[in-house]
Amino acid sequence: MDKIIGIDIGGTKIAIGRADINGNLEESVRFPTNVSRGYKVIVEEIIERTAELIKGQSVRAIGIGCGGPLDSKRGRILSPPNLPGWDDVPLVEDIKSVFKVPVYLENDANAAALGEFHFGAGKDVSNMVYMTLSTGIGGGIILNNKLIHGVRDSGGEVGHQTILPDGPLCNCGNRGCLEALSSGTGIAKIFREKLASGRSSIVSQWVNRPEEISAKIIADAAKMGDSLAKEVWDSAIYYLGIGVANIVTIVSPEMVVLGGSLTKYGDELFIKVREIVRKRARLVPTDEIKIVPAKLGDDVGILGAVAVGLLGDDR
Amino acid sequence: MDKIIGIDIGGTKIAIGRADINGNLEESVRFPTNVSRGYKVIVEEIIERTAELIKGQSVRAIGIGCGGPLDSKRGRILSPPNLPGWDDVPLVEDIKSVFKVPVYLENDANAAALGEFHFGAGKDVSNMVYMTLSTGIGGGIILNNKLIHGVRDSGGEVGHQTILPDGPLCNCGNRGCLEALSSGTGIAKIFREKLASGRSSIVSQWVNRPEEISAKIIADAAKMGDSLAKEVWDSAIYYLGIGVANIVTIVSPEMVVLGGSLTKYGDELFIKVREIVRKRARLVPTDEIKIVPAKLGDDVGILGAVAVGLLGDDR
Repeated sequence: MDKIIGIDIGGTKIAIGRADINGNLEESVRFPTNVSRGYKVIVEEIIERTAELIKGQSVRAIGIGCGGPLDSKRGRILSPPNLPGWDDVPLVEDIKSVFKVPVYLENDANAAALGEFHFGAGKDVSNMVYMTLSTGIGGGIILNNKLIHGVRDSGGEVGHQTILPDGPLCNCGNRGCLEALSSGTGIAKIFREKLASGRSSIVSQWVNRPEEISAKIIADAAKMGDSLAKEVWDSAIYYLGIGVANIVTIVSPEMVVLGGSLTKYGDELFIKVREIVRKRARLVPTDEIKIVPAKLGDDVGILGAVAVGLLGDDR
Repeated sequence: MDKIIGIDIGGTKIAIGRADINGNLEESVRFPTNVSRGYKVIVEEIIERTAELIKGQSVRAIGIGCGGPLDSKRGRILSPPNLPGWDDVPLVEDIKSVFKVPVYLENDANAAALGEFHFGAGKDVSNMVYMTLSTGIGGGIILNNKLIHGVRDSGGEVGHQTILPDGPLCNCGNRGCLEALSSGTGIAKIFREKLASGRSSIVSQWVNRPEEISAKIIADAAKMGDSLAKEVWDSAIYYLGIGVANIVTIVSPEMVVLGGSLTKYGDELFIKVREIVRKRARLVPTDEIKIVPAKLGDDVGILGAVAVGLLGDDR
């Protein structure tokens, strides 16, 4: 009874792994979600691949990380935008009925937060905020060693705080969310709008169509000194710093862990964010609050799910 | 062993009360702090008045609420701006050595939050944010039935989130804090600046000097239809709504309790704040998150301290 299975379900790929209770990943498998196959077929494949990983092993529990909205207590997925057709489906029950071990479900950002908290950067603290900076900005909050689930599992939506009340429209329908200002999608959109309004940039020569412009390309151009790219990138990091400062001011955690693709585009992101937090979060001892990169890298999805399984109802 | 003493220490007045374990206040006393007397004399008076309240009673514990910064674990007050000379003073030890019962210390906003949570509006929930809207904006956060202390007791500083990055300077040194935009002091300052820049208002006829202009006067003028007052008041409530929306988005509590003098100037504050939260906090089920007035009124300081004493290390 000493192994944990972690299942990380995303809209484009699914990753399943077997780990020991210290989060050492022993074996794992990845395959495309291919959402058009529908819930039943996908769950069958998940079960099949999980069975292969379990074979001959003694498994204590299964943890699942999946895009929300979902109901973690009832173990059901509630129509996430990236998993069309998964409308109030009993995922936990469907997995549990096959393997007869405890199965636990958590939204993917919360699961990743638990992964970093138990196996990664936050191993030695009791209060940690995790933020993933990628196409969107998500997160999870752990205080007094417990995940903040929030009403209907909606806690930790750090990317949807308003940073600029009259700012750009966010996918959520609000204006000036951190996600609209500082996520990969947000940065690319702001950049494209500035190009369309007549500003010039070297980036125009690098792509054939505006849709090919990504935060990565903008970060590269900024590093080369392109002035529009630098302006857009710096402004995104500035607002990110304010977002982190607000979280630090409100919950005063011991540590903020930043993960996701955007943290790979330049080390100076951390230096700048720390500087802004120091300036903005005046009532918290910011020199004692660590702002650090995530440690689990591409395994954060699987290991987050493993943490969910390991901790079960104690998370 | 069934009574609790609550001591609420402010820069202008001190209130001490004796309550039963259900938060029913049996007897209380209030007197001016008169900070120029210095720490030792003030503590002597606190001890004397506390002894009178304890006489003939069986007391289980003493709780203290006091302006921060302070060290709740070590029971020391660390140079609060409103208590000059209280520099690293051993308040808990000094009280405990006289009464020989457990004594617990908490910052005043956190204590008030615990008061509302245990005896007031938040009695039936497990996750609650308390905000006090007064000359400043403070608060306390309770999640999974536990107060979020934060690093060095700095958690819950909800008034110092940045709402408007280039907004007015806050007393804390940052720009565009909620407190600079929506506190009593902030509202009055913004109003005075607009008057000084040439705008006109009926308020000018009500006061002899600009310093007499308070948030209360502005709220009254706004109610009478004065256009500058209405503009400043509505904008303050708008930013307050954004501040509450951000907190709701980040921690998704079951309930937000708003207290303090500003909540008395008009019922429509709650209606407007709820409306803004509904618009801004799109990823949380805002119809299930209650935004309600505080219940303890002027007793919140004493009853907050009583809650601190009652809960002790379990808070």
